[in-house]
Amino acid sequence: MRFFSDNAAAVCPQVLDALARVNVVDTAYDGDQWSQSLDARFSELFETQVRALWVPTGTAANSLALAAMCPPYGGVICHAMAHINVDECGAPGFYTHGATLLAGEGEGAKLTPQAIADAVRHIRPDVHQVQPHAVSITNATEYGLSYTPSEVGAIGELARSHGWGLHMDGARFANAVAHLGCAPADVTWRAGVDALSFGFVKNGGMSAEALIFFKTELAEATLMRRKRAGLLFSKGRYLAAQLLAMLDGDLWLANARAANAGARLLAEAAPERLVYPVEANEVFIRLSADEAASLRALGFDFYDWGVGEARLVISWDQSEDAIRPLAEAIARLC
Amino acid sequence: MRFFSDNAAAVCPQVLDALARVNVVDTAYDGDQWSQSLDARFSELFETQVRALWVPTGTAANSLALAAMCPPYGGVICHAMAHINVDECGAPGFYTHGATLLAGEGEGAKLTPQAIADAVRHIRPDVHQVQPHAVSITNATEYGLSYTPSEVGAIGELARSHGWGLHMDGARFANAVAHLGCAPADVTWRAGVDALSFGFVKNGGMSAEALIFFKTELAEATLMRRKRAGLLFSKGRYLAAQLLAMLDGDLWLANARAANAGARLLAEAAPERLVYPVEANEVFIRLSADEAASLRALGFDFYDWGVGEARLVISWDQSEDAIRPLAEAIARLC
Amino acid sequence: MRFFSDNAAAVCPQVLDALARVNVVDTAYDGDQWSQSLDARFSELFETQVRALWVPTGTAANSLALAAMCPPYGGVICHAMAHINVDECGAPGFYTHGATLLAGEGEGAKLTPQAIADAVRHIRPDVHQVQPHAVSITNATEYGLSYTPSEVGAIGELARSHGWGLHMDGARFANAVAHLGCAPADVTWRAGVDALSFGFVKNGGMSAEALIFFKTELAEATLMRRKRAGLLFSKGRYLAAQLLAMLDGDLWLANARAANAGARLLAEAAPERLVYPVEANEVFIRLSADEAASLRALGFDFYDWGVGEARLVISWDQSEDAIRPLAEAIARLC
Amino acid sequence: MRFFSDNAAAVCPQVLDALARVNVVDTAYDGDQWSQSLDARFSELFETQVRALWVPTGTAANSLALAAMCPPYGGVICHAMAHINVDECGAPGFYTHGATLLAGEGEGAKLTPQAIADAVRHIRPDVHQVQPHAVSITNATEYGLSYTPSEVGAIGELARSHGWGLHMDGARFANAVAHLGCAPADVTWRAGVDALSFGFVKNGGMSAEALIFFKTELAEATLMRRKRAGLLFSKGRYLAAQLLAMLDGDLWLANARAANAGARLLAEAAPERLVYPVEANEVFIRLSADEAASLRALGFDFYDWGVGEARLVISWDQSEDAIRPLAEAIARLC
Repeated sequence: MRFFSDNAAAVCPQVLDALARVNVVDTAYDGDQWSQSLDARFSELFETQVRALWVPTGTAANSLALAAMCPPYGGVICHAMAHINVDECGAPGFYTHGATLLAGEGEGAKLTPQAIADAVRHIRPDVHQVQPHAVSITNATEYGLSYTPSEVGAIGELARSHGWGLHMDGARFANAVAHLGCAPADVTWRAGVDALSFGFVKNGGMSAEALIFFKTELAEATLMRRKRAGLLFSKGRYLAAQLLAMLDGDLWLANARAANAGARLLAEAAPERLVYPVEANEVFIRLSADEAASLRALGFDFYDWGVGEARLVISWDQSEDAIRPLAEAIARLC
Repeated sequence: MRFFSDNAAAVCPQVLDALARVNVVDTAYDGDQWSQSLDARFSELFETQVRALWVPTGTAANSLALAAMCPPYGGVICHAMAHINVDECGAPGFYTHGATLLAGEGEGAKLTPQAIADAVRHIRPDVHQVQPHAVSITNATEYGLSYTPSEVGAIGELARSHGWGLHMDGARFANAVAHLGCAPADVTWRAGVDALSFGFVKNGGMSAEALIFFKTELAEATLMRRKRAGLLFSKGRYLAAQLLAMLDGDLWLANARAANAGARLLAEAAPERLVYPVEANEVFIRLSADEAASLRALGFDFYDWGVGEARLVISWDQSEDAIRPLAEAIARLC
Repeated sequence: MRFFSDNAAAVCPQVLDALARVNVVDTAYDGDQWSQSLDARFSELFETQVRALWVPTGTAANSLALAAMCPPYGGVICHAMAHINVDECGAPGFYTHGATLLAGEGEGAKLTPQAIADAVRHIRPDVHQVQPHAVSITNATEYGLSYTPSEVGAIGELARSHGWGLHMDGARFANAVAHLGCAPADVTWRAGVDALSFGFVKNGGMSAEALIFFKTELAEATLMRRKRAGLLFSKGRYLAAQLLAMLDGDLWLANARAANAGARLLAEAAPERLVYPVEANEVFIRLSADEAASLRALGFDFYDWGVGEARLVISWDQSEDAIRPLAEAIARLC
Repeated sequence: MRFFSDNAAAVCPQVLDALARVNVVDTAYDGDQWSQSLDARFSELFETQVRALWVPTGTAANSLALAAMCPPYGGVICHAMAHINVDECGAPGFYTHGATLLAGEGEGAKLTPQAIADAVRHIRPDVHQVQPHAVSITNATEYGLSYTPSEVGAIGELARSHGWGLHMDGARFANAVAHLGCAPADVTWRAGVDALSFGFVKNGGMSAEALIFFKTELAEATLMRRKRAGLLFSKGRYLAAQLLAMLDGDLWLANARAANAGARLLAEAAPERLVYPVEANEVFIRLSADEAASLRALGFDFYDWGVGEARLVISWDQSEDAIRPLAEAIARLC
């Protein structure tokens, strides 16, 4: 049974159905009615006027957002463990034309205003050093922690005071919102976020993420960059349809809640093993090599995460019944 | 009725079905069995060992191919009307980090060895001038002409003699092969082509093109570049499945033949109006503004193409019955 | 005797002397008193507030100016024969991160509003095509023609009406101003120029050009780009000193007048051979291969320029006595 | 009295004299006899065939070297305190088109094989993570330590075993060699170095550094990149002349020895205050704020370097008599 990643999960039936529904002739690129409706639909969700662009991957969404905020000679502050820093093969450097990621520290891949200040403390404001132009945070973080609206707000205030942009990598934004129980607006633009990579693929989508600009003037140049990167699909309606299907009836929230619930079930099985509190759909537990081997012998599939730790990820489509055997196996370990 | 572009067509039922078939849990990115089978499947088709990568758009395929062949300080010879030169928002400049497109001339967007030589005649072999490193040709061309194997071979020989790479933009490769009636190998690697952007989206696909490397050593760096450009889908199997569905039973050829037949039907309706011979699924005809208006009044939708000309494009899913009314309307014009 | 290029000439004694004068300890980079005085000194010359940066080469000046005006996904309109298009190894593509040069036509490498409009006539205002963001003209042109203030003004007006920046490559700006007899302001900012590459090296300098921003807000980012390109010399005072020495007592004008006078002397020797009027320090004449050989046999060194033409360039340090023998030899040819 | 940096020093009289000596007409760019002699002259110095290019700054030399070794999607391992990482405004990112600097740790800005291994320990060999392609070390380091031939050799062996390039930033290479007393070859190519930024500006030069390729096949593309970066001076002989003047009679070594001796004089004045051993021309001492203030009150000018420390740099032109007052003032402090 798979617990290694939510990005290996199957696609929601509603998403597949949506593909069939838009399988008619329409205007190419993003001129079709579905693509054209995204701004309005996401504006409604976020309770403010936004620009919403489909893009096929989270890496593309992140990189386009950073390129909109940071010039080639600038820097973006992020956590050392941020996906943009360690798992995107330098994509931000490609899209920004060589901007520098300025790495900060913090438990559970979470930045704080203090951590951000520390990360740039030694930067003199002169032309010899890369100057920060933006901050990027991941919510939920790479270790499954969720930033609360007030935590984001504190970073947003710091960013605004320096004139920096604020980007949120929301590969698991749905899981964070489901955990926080807040309005999507509360943890984004109301807290100072300028652009959000709103992930759907890990949450039941197939090949569409949404890049949301709360600072809407960033969208125009991004449309050019999206085309220039070969990301403007000629049959864009099949991306738009995926996003719309996920928003319909708050499917995105339902899927995220299901995954989060599964993660909590695992967490409750072994609270003393938890490396971090479980605030999304990922569970990091202390696990010896022998223990890991014994779980794998039972058919459970997951990644080691550093020495003596393991990462268990729950996907949108895993029922409690499917998860309980692992929970019980972990509980039995000690 | 739409004759404005094949990229607005619907997706083949076989392609949609394939998406449903792979809708199971599997390894992420391109580690799944379908993605892993592409090299073998395309090697069979091309009768030689190739590397085959899925990418979502033709622009991405073209740009990745050029980046594999041309350093940032180099140049790529292409036709002035080439899609890479006029319709990709500078994507080749993005992916190659600033390489220069060196534009040549030729009827119907078709290059010849002579046209290529002319395009670079004035380039001194010194560091002050951008030196050519590759040639890119489009087959079928942007005006619906097909390069024959021997035409490609002549260019291939020229390229080889200079140590240049040879790329083929095959957005409508299927239509060219259907027209030529040759083996895919004949008009590609046997004629000196190093990399092919093999288009499927205009031919019934949804969001998957194949980037084929006949010069297989170019693939390794391209895998890094594909990831770095945000083009490595986590659920890659849904791209692989599209390509495999198009290859199954030579669906790609059947679709292209259907579209080509439709184009011929139009061509035969008004041979005296043809700007170029019809060798694929595009028909360029002389058409006055009044004539264009009268056709549009009948419900036919198409693009003007320069002054006094119009472009009519047939899609894979347009039956002869659907096309005949336009053919008849054109025939009635004079 | 050399007539092949003014960039091979020796350095003015006043420039060498200036190097010795600043050969004392001072603040590094551009913190020294001489570098710090450039804004004021050039503002005086141009009768308006400018920002003036030293850079070592014209290619660097041009590229930094274009990068300040044009985003990576944009285009710069220039003449097909412009130095930036044919003789800088793609430097604009490097500094702008892949922007496209959009080539226009015109006699003597001179653009007009009409030529500019023609160059971009076919660009649709959509994301598929590179959109123009700036115009670059060379004064004096690559064929030794000078744009008058009103000619520049007409282009400036066109640029302003489209929101495009206007750059002037002034590798031989001094020669143009000497020919025109106008104030430097008249042919630059008063005519709509936003940035000027003000050349000194061809005019007696050693290794310093001035990049002048009339649109002063473009300077800040350029300071970062200059450093990032490895162009911020630690001993910048030796560049500043060169520029100041050239401005002192209008040495730059005196040198340019001398070179222009030499060119006129040649032009008068064979008015019927002139390909273009002589409006700077370059003379283009019709010359058969035999004639060219006979001149070379007499010890005159120059470049062929296309078939049946030759380019003769006069440097600041060539006296009329040194030029007269060539003038006479040309006159004797027929 | 200035102890803040060697890059603020005056230029050697021999270098200025050399400028006057080449102040004659010659071929432009690097076609002149002096530029053409550099390969041979540096090959002699290094006892092997090298390619030697003049470039105006150390930042340019470093960046060109890295661009020759590392593709845009790759990484370069360097010390966290390396000049390329903290003081070049992201120039390596510009020249390499976005490659990533992978920072390692070590006392005194010095890397070891172990530190290098640690820096890349967590990099999986897959397309998601930036893969190392080169190592860059600074000799003497940013804290005035010199790598010995065997220390470099150990790193060279590690690099070779992984197929990585090895670059040496030798902004103070002369000081390192003067300290080590070894042949320049011993601490470079014999120890596995592929490219060296050989600094002259801090050591009495004006505006010329040498980029030395021991792996000579890296030079060709670099010539294109140098031009494309606007670094190919039209009057290149004035750069070549500086380098040749510094090599003549081993002036480079004499200058470096003088500066090193001055640094030792300071070090001996307060051995107990030394943060690092003095192995070049920089002295880092522990100094309270009050002590620093008292020294400054005496007219000594230097930089604080972190809290409670100061950096004192000796230039080639500072005599022992000029340094002794500072040495005595420091000795008197306690």
